[in-house]
Amino acid sequence: MNYETPLFFQVMAYADAADRDVIDMVSGTPDWEPPAALRSGLREYADLESDRFQYPPSDGLRELREEIAARRGVDADQVVVTNGAGEANYLAMARALERERGREFLLTDPVYPYYPGKATMLGGTHSSVATDDEGRLRPEDVRAAASAETAAIVVTTPNNPTGAVYPAETMRELVAVAEEYDAVLISDEVYDHYDLSGRFASALETDSTHRIVTNAFSKSMAITGVRVGYAIFPPELVANARSRHMLVTVATTRPGQYAVLQALRETGPEYYERNRELLRDRVDTFTDALDAAGAEYTTPSGSFYVMARFDGYPGTLETVERLIDEAGVAGMPGEAFGDSRTDWLRFALVSPRVEEAAERLATYFD
Amino acid sequence: MNYETPLFFQVMAYADAADRDVIDMVSGTPDWEPPAALRSGLREYADLESDRFQYPPSDGLRELREEIAARRGVDADQVVVTNGAGEANYLAMARALERERGREFLLTDPVYPYYPGKATMLGGTHSSVATDDEGRLRPEDVRAAASAETAAIVVTTPNNPTGAVYPAETMRELVAVAEEYDAVLISDEVYDHYDLSGRFASALETDSTHRIVTNAFSKSMAITGVRVGYAIFPPELVANARSRHMLVTVATTRPGQYAVLQALRETGPEYYERNRELLRDRVDTFTDALDAAGAEYTTPSGSFYVMARFDGYPGTLETVERLIDEAGVAGMPGEAFGDSRTDWLRFALVSPRVEEAAERLATYFD
Repeated sequence: MNYETPLFFQVMAYADAADRDVIDMVSGTPDWEPPAALRSGLREYADLESDRFQYPPSDGLRELREEIAARRGVDADQVVVTNGAGEANYLAMARALERERGREFLLTDPVYPYYPGKATMLGGTHSSVATDDEGRLRPEDVRAAASAETAAIVVTTPNNPTGAVYPAETMRELVAVAEEYDAVLISDEVYDHYDLSGRFASALETDSTHRIVTNAFSKSMAITGVRVGYAIFPPELVANARSRHMLVTVATTRPGQYAVLQALRETGPEYYERNRELLRDRVDTFTDALDAAGAEYTTPSGSFYVMARFDGYPGTLETVERLIDEAGVAGMPGEAFGDSRTDWLRFALVSPRVEEAAERLATYFD
Repeated sequence: MNYETPLFFQVMAYADAADRDVIDMVSGTPDWEPPAALRSGLREYADLESDRFQYPPSDGLRELREEIAARRGVDADQVVVTNGAGEANYLAMARALERERGREFLLTDPVYPYYPGKATMLGGTHSSVATDDEGRLRPEDVRAAASAETAAIVVTTPNNPTGAVYPAETMRELVAVAEEYDAVLISDEVYDHYDLSGRFASALETDSTHRIVTNAFSKSMAITGVRVGYAIFPPELVANARSRHMLVTVATTRPGQYAVLQALRETGPEYYERNRELLRDRVDTFTDALDAAGAEYTTPSGSFYVMARFDGYPGTLETVERLIDEAGVAGMPGEAFGDSRTDWLRFALVSPRVEEAAERLATYFD
């Protein structure tokens, strides 16, 4: 087995080595503040008795699991606290394969590149269902692609990289397709707090033994480095996932779990609303500049990303490097996300310099 | 695939539910203080700029990898910082299988039960080489058990549960056996700071492309819940392990990495010596009581554990529950560690009440 270093790291390295000032719109790491209670939770933890520095329960601190369960309307026993959404997706995909109802993962195109990587690592195969130019996924296309070989359908909503938010009907239909083919829908909802459309629908809204929901506090609390996420399994599927979690990581970091629990309890809706407002402003600023640059683009309904297409600038690493050198703005090539966006570039709105980046692009393409 | 909940958890649950005061000598979680700099490192982290709350490099903070590499005499590029030794062993075992030079793991008996669990989860097989009553492993026995099917030999030194410390010659020979059979020696050295004998020898002392060393700060810094460990790979094997790490957990918790780095830099040898002294005292106290109780036992050369055998009390869950109820002391049944210690019990010396536990056992068996 061999895995490639994600293109992501190559772009970051190129931007870092550039001879000029470059505005980083490459990765999905928020540049806003974590909740104050997250910081105070960590501070508090540092002074706890030494026994609180020892293993938490493998599946997570009980209070954290209960807090998550209450918010998501599930039983605490269905929740496994993980090392971020990364581990949550890994556990979910492994669990789907362990059902031994097929070895193929149905992904979307464009796709978050870690999914095909995980599928291959787990010894599964993968194929893709194309979304439309706005990132909409048609459940009938998923149904047409599904077969007895389908182990799981893996989707992200709000979507990275398209910014699409799948409506409730789509989510219901995706669960139905999973049921029809005795597969599992894995719904990665890590951007749920960045739904800018008000139309986000969790897969949890459709009760089923055929869907797993993954999430994390990495994006919602702007703490991608703390590594606390979770997966919610149907009761029938949770035991094996819990065992794998125990055998792979034993447990997720306890200071992080403690701080996230404090932050969940003490952070009001205004924190999340403020971050959404910030994103809305950035979307406006950036897409205005894209208009000025004569580019085609998608206005995200959620998540952090704007996809843009500039005539004569294909979505390749070469173009990205050229824009780093010539415009001083670093994005991601669309080719990193599958076959359908090879003409596009992705820009992450996670820099305080989005306005400046927009100006640079508008000037460059003028 | 199905995994059982480790017996460990059953024993803990039974002890928790007992109607009387029970001294917990079940798990390997230190009851002593983490280094002061670990606490101050966490406190400091809580006040860093928000960009420091975002993803660290997937394979670990550069300064931490360099600090580890300098201490272990390897190149920083060989180090992958992991979610504890649990993930380090998982990555090492997965990497051994990926070489496609056999699918069998050669383990020892007694064995740390997570190893056979990981072997099965990874789709490998496992067989065992018995150690003697003192826990000594004879490399010629390992050689006799090895074959073209051997993917890896997995050992722990200082050992859990036997307390044995393998001498330098054993480690050299184990590496030689791995080389002869084109396998990998995986040496889990998580108890290296609890070598009470002065004879500990790391597998790193034998230069080879056929050995992987795993470790963590969980035991050495008394922080099993923080989840920072590492694996050191030969340069030839590190790339795939790094990719798997990225695909499974993305990265290990950054506050934990930051705090461990501070603690590594600022904690002098007296911290570790003090903890070893504490353990030495506890070994003396506990084995004196075992003498008084007429029990057979092993005096550990390292790690936290004393194995004991009481006539008429086999090393079963039943016996452990009986001792919880009747003596008020909770240990682990020897049967949890393989076939060779089914007459034995394991007691972890990680309670401030070791003396009281010793008295209880001496009285009970009087």
